[in-house]
Amino acid sequence: MGHTAPYRLRPESVQRVIEAALTLVRELVHLKGETVKRLEKDAEKVPALLGLPLGHNSSFQQGPAFAPALIRESMWCHSTNSFTEKGIDLNDIRNLVDVGNLPIQELRDCGVDDKQLFDAISSAVKIIYQQKPLYPIVMGGDHSVTWPVVRGVVEAAGQPVDILHFDAHPDMYDCFEGNRYSHASGFARIMEDGLARNLLQVGIRSITGEGRAQAKKFGVRQFEMHSYEDHREYLENLTLGEGCAGVYVSIDVDCLDPAYAPGISHHEPGGMSFRDVMNVLHNLKGNIIGADVVEYNPQRDRDSMTAMVAAKFVRELAAKMAK
Amino acid sequence: MGHTAPYRLRPESVQRVIEAALTLVRELVHLKGETVKRLEKDAEKVPALLGLPLGHNSSFQQGPAFAPALIRESMWCHSTNSFTEKGIDLNDIRNLVDVGNLPIQELRDCGVDDKQLFDAISSAVKIIYQQKPLYPIVMGGDHSVTWPVVRGVVEAAGQPVDILHFDAHPDMYDCFEGNRYSHASGFARIMEDGLARNLLQVGIRSITGEGRAQAKKFGVRQFEMHSYEDHREYLENLTLGEGCAGVYVSIDVDCLDPAYAPGISHHEPGGMSFRDVMNVLHNLKGNIIGADVVEYNPQRDRDSMTAMVAAKFVRELAAKMAK
Amino acid sequence: MGHTAPYRLRPESVQRVIEAALTLVRELVHLKGETVKRLEKDAEKVPALLGLPLGHNSSFQQGPAFAPALIRESMWCHSTNSFTEKGIDLNDIRNLVDVGNLPIQELRDCGVDDKQLFDAISSAVKIIYQQKPLYPIVMGGDHSVTWPVVRGVVEAAGQPVDILHFDAHPDMYDCFEGNRYSHASGFARIMEDGLARNLLQVGIRSITGEGRAQAKKFGVRQFEMHSYEDHREYLENLTLGEGCAGVYVSIDVDCLDPAYAPGISHHEPGGMSFRDVMNVLHNLKGNIIGADVVEYNPQRDRDSMTAMVAAKFVRELAAKMAK
Amino acid sequence: MGHTAPYRLRPESVQRVIEAALTLVRELVHLKGETVKRLEKDAEKVPALLGLPLGHNSSFQQGPAFAPALIRESMWCHSTNSFTEKGIDLNDIRNLVDVGNLPIQELRDCGVDDKQLFDAISSAVKIIYQQKPLYPIVMGGDHSVTWPVVRGVVEAAGQPVDILHFDAHPDMYDCFEGNRYSHASGFARIMEDGLARNLLQVGIRSITGEGRAQAKKFGVRQFEMHSYEDHREYLENLTLGEGCAGVYVSIDVDCLDPAYAPGISHHEPGGMSFRDVMNVLHNLKGNIIGADVVEYNPQRDRDSMTAMVAAKFVRELAAKMAK
Amino acid sequence: MGHTAPYRLRPESVQRVIEAALTLVRELVHLKGETVKRLEKDAEKVPALLGLPLGHNSSFQQGPAFAPALIRESMWCHSTNSFTEKGIDLNDIRNLVDVGNLPIQELRDCGVDDKQLFDAISSAVKIIYQQKPLYPIVMGGDHSVTWPVVRGVVEAAGQPVDILHFDAHPDMYDCFEGNRYSHASGFARIMEDGLARNLLQVGIRSITGEGRAQAKKFGVRQFEMHSYEDHREYLENLTLGEGCAGVYVSIDVDCLDPAYAPGISHHEPGGMSFRDVMNVLHNLKGNIIGADVVEYNPQRDRDSMTAMVAAKFVRELAAKMAK
Amino acid sequence: MGHTAPYRLRPESVQRVIEAALTLVRELVHLKGETVKRLEKDAEKVPALLGLPLGHNSSFQQGPAFAPALIRESMWCHSTNSFTEKGIDLNDIRNLVDVGNLPIQELRDCGVDDKQLFDAISSAVKIIYQQKPLYPIVMGGDHSVTWPVVRGVVEAAGQPVDILHFDAHPDMYDCFEGNRYSHASGFARIMEDGLARNLLQVGIRSITGEGRAQAKKFGVRQFEMHSYEDHREYLENLTLGEGCAGVYVSIDVDCLDPAYAPGISHHEPGGMSFRDVMNVLHNLKGNIIGADVVEYNPQRDRDSMTAMVAAKFVRELAAKMAK
Repeated sequence: MGHTAPYRLRPESVQRVIEAALTLVRELVHLKGETVKRLEKDAEKVPALLGLPLGHNSSFQQGPAFAPALIRESMWCHSTNSFTEKGIDLNDIRNLVDVGNLPIQELRDCGVDDKQLFDAISSAVKIIYQQKPLYPIVMGGDHSVTWPVVRGVVEAAGQPVDILHFDAHPDMYDCFEGNRYSHASGFARIMEDGLARNLLQVGIRSITGEGRAQAKKFGVRQFEMHSYEDHREYLENLTLGEGCAGVYVSIDVDCLDPAYAPGISHHEPGGMSFRDVMNVLHNLKGNIIGADVVEYNPQRDRDSMTAMVAAKFVRELAAKMAK
Repeated sequence: MGHTAPYRLRPESVQRVIEAALTLVRELVHLKGETVKRLEKDAEKVPALLGLPLGHNSSFQQGPAFAPALIRESMWCHSTNSFTEKGIDLNDIRNLVDVGNLPIQELRDCGVDDKQLFDAISSAVKIIYQQKPLYPIVMGGDHSVTWPVVRGVVEAAGQPVDILHFDAHPDMYDCFEGNRYSHASGFARIMEDGLARNLLQVGIRSITGEGRAQAKKFGVRQFEMHSYEDHREYLENLTLGEGCAGVYVSIDVDCLDPAYAPGISHHEPGGMSFRDVMNVLHNLKGNIIGADVVEYNPQRDRDSMTAMVAAKFVRELAAKMAK
Repeated sequence: MGHTAPYRLRPESVQRVIEAALTLVRELVHLKGETVKRLEKDAEKVPALLGLPLGHNSSFQQGPAFAPALIRESMWCHSTNSFTEKGIDLNDIRNLVDVGNLPIQELRDCGVDDKQLFDAISSAVKIIYQQKPLYPIVMGGDHSVTWPVVRGVVEAAGQPVDILHFDAHPDMYDCFEGNRYSHASGFARIMEDGLARNLLQVGIRSITGEGRAQAKKFGVRQFEMHSYEDHREYLENLTLGEGCAGVYVSIDVDCLDPAYAPGISHHEPGGMSFRDVMNVLHNLKGNIIGADVVEYNPQRDRDSMTAMVAAKFVRELAAKMAK
Repeated sequence: MGHTAPYRLRPESVQRVIEAALTLVRELVHLKGETVKRLEKDAEKVPALLGLPLGHNSSFQQGPAFAPALIRESMWCHSTNSFTEKGIDLNDIRNLVDVGNLPIQELRDCGVDDKQLFDAISSAVKIIYQQKPLYPIVMGGDHSVTWPVVRGVVEAAGQPVDILHFDAHPDMYDCFEGNRYSHASGFARIMEDGLARNLLQVGIRSITGEGRAQAKKFGVRQFEMHSYEDHREYLENLTLGEGCAGVYVSIDVDCLDPAYAPGISHHEPGGMSFRDVMNVLHNLKGNIIGADVVEYNPQRDRDSMTAMVAAKFVRELAAKMAK
Repeated sequence: MGHTAPYRLRPESVQRVIEAALTLVRELVHLKGETVKRLEKDAEKVPALLGLPLGHNSSFQQGPAFAPALIRESMWCHSTNSFTEKGIDLNDIRNLVDVGNLPIQELRDCGVDDKQLFDAISSAVKIIYQQKPLYPIVMGGDHSVTWPVVRGVVEAAGQPVDILHFDAHPDMYDCFEGNRYSHASGFARIMEDGLARNLLQVGIRSITGEGRAQAKKFGVRQFEMHSYEDHREYLENLTLGEGCAGVYVSIDVDCLDPAYAPGISHHEPGGMSFRDVMNVLHNLKGNIIGADVVEYNPQRDRDSMTAMVAAKFVRELAAKMAK
Repeated sequence: MGHTAPYRLRPESVQRVIEAALTLVRELVHLKGETVKRLEKDAEKVPALLGLPLGHNSSFQQGPAFAPALIRESMWCHSTNSFTEKGIDLNDIRNLVDVGNLPIQELRDCGVDDKQLFDAISSAVKIIYQQKPLYPIVMGGDHSVTWPVVRGVVEAAGQPVDILHFDAHPDMYDCFEGNRYSHASGFARIMEDGLARNLLQVGIRSITGEGRAQAKKFGVRQFEMHSYEDHREYLENLTLGEGCAGVYVSIDVDCLDPAYAPGISHHEPGGMSFRDVMNVLHNLKGNIIGADVVEYNPQRDRDSMTAMVAAKFVRELAAKMAK
């Protein structure tokens, strides 16, 4: 997506652009956080929606960079209303605020490398976390964003999280096609950095030998689709996050069967139904302190069908987080 | 596109968000402008690409808000190269820089009204104009952005411009469906404000009685498609912008027949071919000091076919502007 | 869809058009009903297919007005045959006759208002009902048609019905966007008019506070998708319609997950599978005396995939009704 | 499209259905014609739009049966306005009235054969013609409808017409795939019946040996695309219809290159541009007393792009006819 | 698909083309078989992939002729990897080799009739079977290929097989539209020829009276979708192929609900989920000695979604066969 | 497209596969050539259609590998007939024979490298050329096939050809992305090898500095779109091929504007119309002894619209060649 300037830009000026980008986030977070405090004094936890339009770490298609704008449109479009399945009204400021996007394309066009970019992402997440009572709910972007988002959450919280991760793939390559920042490697980084106490992966059905070896090495629990029925009852009655910072939920839209979500980069048949994910999520017991919905790819979508799916994931996650 | 917070936000905090948004533009403009001066001392005029992801003033579809990201992708995509038709290399910093987007959605979600938003757009344009040797080339967004962009250019230049306007419609309703900021009213505002010395409209083929009356009132020259062949030679040999600030070119992608550009909101058969527009543009004599390409609607596009068209308009405009 | 003449037409001449429209239905009903009696003396209940190409009461998209012609095409297309899942041959006149469409567009173009239009619909339904052994099976059209259709059935039968209603939404707004005839309000009208003894809503997953309040007020039983598995056994063994006029079945195609039926106006993820609906329908015990299949929207369909779904709903309903 | 009842229906009852269908047309024609006379006493010629949703005589695809509803929607859709290119307002009753559809599917489902059906079409056209000041403008349907429509016009007028026929194909097979009523044979019938004094075919680029032989036999003038430039000036300055009943214009949408009109059954590259057709039509001198726009096929259209094209043909024809 | 030369070709020269076609298969089989023996001496059973691009025996659409090339592309495309769900690496020569396509179009263009063509298919299959340790896994093509493929397997093995057949339709018409080689008749031929000891049909939901009668006549066990849940446990624990040549698996992609596989010719709602098929296949006990995946139709696919499904069927079948 | 076996195959066995592939072509050429001689003794030049399903040398998308099967389908599909624009009947054996495809995928899966593959292509072309009166007309595949095809023609003819090349791009990179066999380098190879006496490139509108330098170096005449009108008369009256072996015509479908041919890999706006190409081709004077139509990409096509375009290019080329 887009272009990186081929000529060299002065690092100190680039740093000023990064600062300006974070200032934009900071002001929006401040504005929304102060408003919550003014209007709803006793709100304990309000999800703050942050968009990360980043697609360049995808191995196959960069479309996820276009996702946040389209998910937002579907969240508020006229074909649905502001209530979630369990009756939470997202037009109520206690249940959701929006803090805009981190301007990823602008940073990349300045020659910012992935290390700098991921640091900026972690910073943005911490800015949210520190503005009580806001908690981050992130719209990707490709799945590479989860590592810096979780890092921001864990650094702000001061301790690791339990991660509930829905995906067709484990995303634990040590290094994918030479890229350690790849969307296929994020959970290897998370485990190496000790950011997760437990990692549960649900929906897995495309996994190499390396993927299984990494799971073993890091103690990851993988729930594969070929035996989903054996684990359904367990998964629909999870308790997570006790005795650590809380729960982080990461939903890669491709956990779903492509029938339910054609607008993704990697069509892997045999996935979960939308209701399967809902059943796990609605019944989860635990304090969710951060979440993301990633890998929606508008360039493969049809009539925004998958945008509606990603939007409903965001909506139901928000309803589950809000307190 | 998206949501406007239904609760009241403090005006002074909103103002801080507007400032942060302009700061982001300012830093990018500064970074790119300084780099041009450092690397290419004798560049006289370098087009600076600014995205305005704004769609809410469309009467029919809001898709143009998603355009800038997709036009950028098409500009640099692997299916083409960095050279324009007349041999200008856009990877050369003398010929194009990118200064990112003004974060429209973030501003609107803070309850900024159209007056404030259009002022911010004019400010962003002036920030570019005042950083020599940069000149603005804008990607909409719907056609409502042209008014504040032209205003910014004219205020920075200190005198009116000649406008060459490609469009299926005159966009001169006094007020469209109650909205004076509508994408169908922009040129009425421009003429009322005295921003244009001459306004030439090319490609017109959907015009009401009011449209013709306004043209008469404001002295606008309309070249309608039903008699295009009678005017072809004249249009392919235009001289504009002498004795005023220069030329501003506004290309509404729907000037083209929908066969060439399906990705627009208003399919009006009988339009120009892509080559027709190129012939007018390539042969235009005059100093272009600002330009826009608007109304590309990704939600009606197919395989980014129209994104390539919009991108080529931007590319050829940049080549024409660069000096 | 289409145009309403902006000038005033004489009411008495308009009335003649309404009469002509009903005459067309009457002649078709007579022709088919007499043929049944001539060929199959002992047929007790023969479903008569009536199309209602009405879309203007949709809140979001008017495509359902185009549905009847496309559902008919799919019912008889070469990619399938004339047998239903349980072995009923729909080419046998005992199992289905077609009585054409009520010409909705023609009526609306004459300035007929919704009150008059709905009266004409009720009349058409009664014309069918009174021609023994025909019973109405209606193809919408948007969901606003259900109210006048049920009214026609109940008036002809002389007592209320039990309604089995498949839908993502309860459609019980008192008034939606100022329109009491809206497709989102039909079941409020039905309950207010006392047309239903019992109303069961299956597939619900998009419901506001008002939707729940209305259900409570009218004693409606809602089976929401978030707890579908808890009610599956009950729903797959229903007995309805005893001690009243019989059962009316209303299938809004959006009861299905959009994966199964993309050709609808309101994509609401997490819905029923096609087989879920079949399981409820095939096992239903009760005398179905009227039915509808509504909200198929050809403008969002792909390769007539959803037309096949709507057609199969009509086919299986007919097989269930025929006796 | 749809189904023909496989059992035998009584001819006298079928005749009653045909009568009811024509009564519906008659009442609409009467209503609209009387209104014109009441409101605009001096209107001399008002085009009356009649839809013929007939597709079964297509050799390849039956989609044209679905065309009239979609063309109507595009004529009045929000993406355009009610004015034609030369400034005629179609919302003015002097310029266009709508008399609805002849209910073709209902007739065919009663076992009406093509002879009866074509007689009903001719009757409907005559009903219009005899209600002064209405003149028929027909929306197909496939091209087989032109024969009975022209027959109706000629019978009502009492003398032959000059026909200006835009098409990729001559449609003059003596018999196509055994069907003398085929959409590929209509102009053979017209010429045999002596309905046309002159027949000019414009846009031809798919023609067999038989097609050329028939043209020679009937004295038809064919303007083939491979030499269009040689004839452009002549075609853009036509005078027709003097000394006979007047001019009939038949536009098969496939006269256009498929780039301009993908929504047709027969993609034949190398066709006219939309503007080419407009140039011929706008400059035509002659009294148009009947017209049709046929072969639009919604099932191959994309985002109603070709519906807009067919609608603009209808609109510009109406503007040209109205007096 | 394509053209059959309308003039007569000399039979002896045609025979030379058939021979050349089989020689091509023979050389590829030899090359791959020898390589397996050289590199992996103890491989017992290696699936050899043969493409049969044949579509002309379809009743409705001929697209399956284009399937093999697209399934191959999806099998190795970058959006997935070479491992199957249970951890088999298909890049290992023990698990899969490719022996190319039989050049069907070339044979048909020489005027080869279906008898000759089916004999050539059987010969190609036997060529594979006789090159130990290769066993055929076929990509259709339409379902008519199964008969000659099974015949080849049974002739090579010297005894009948048990057939596990996934399909929406029984494909047992005695003769479909006059064609005894039709894709809707293949299993009638198989049963008449005594090629199958047992035939189990899973996924059935479109069946005529004849289909049920044929099943009874031939002793076929049909598992219909309307009662799938009653048979799920049985089907997910099958043992087949003992005491005969082994098991043959035939997967018609339309066994799936169209939601999972839109790229098929016959959309029949209410089908199996992809996981349902996997559950039956993964748990099947028995020695699979031949298999096919048929009726994928690229012309109705979207973004290769169904190609991925067909490819995964091939992949998982190969993993199940390899030993 | 597809997979290359990752293990090593014995070169001598691979050679046998290459031989078998050429044998298949040889037998088909022999069969068709003998039939022509038998039936039409005085045919001087009969175009023989050879498919080259090769896509791996594309820089962007490999879809052209799927083209030949789909172009063949469009050539003979029911929506058109067998006559060309100037009245040549392609069902007459004097005007066209089909000799099938060279099995590219099978060769590549055996590890054949591009040198071997291109040699096989040249051999296949020479096999055609040497079977009088057949002359090759090739369907690509990507544009890399033109080099070996022209080489085959020139080697068989014993002297160079004049090449008329329609394309958006010059395809003369010395080496594109490290690949000297690239589809973007073919004409550099042709010129280096001295295969063309004259090379005229028509339709050029995407060209880098290197492209212009190579044209200068090799004396290539480029007709760029930005000045097409200046050269139209010259191009529509070409005489070529005198005093050398004759004319070779290479049509890259992307010479057309994407409006006319969306099914290509590189959308470059501002191209030729279909009629522009026809006008050059129909009026060309010269003896065409070989031709190709390349770069049709079915994966970006819609409803086979571009397949029809490619097919019509093949059809009109054949008509022009046949004698």
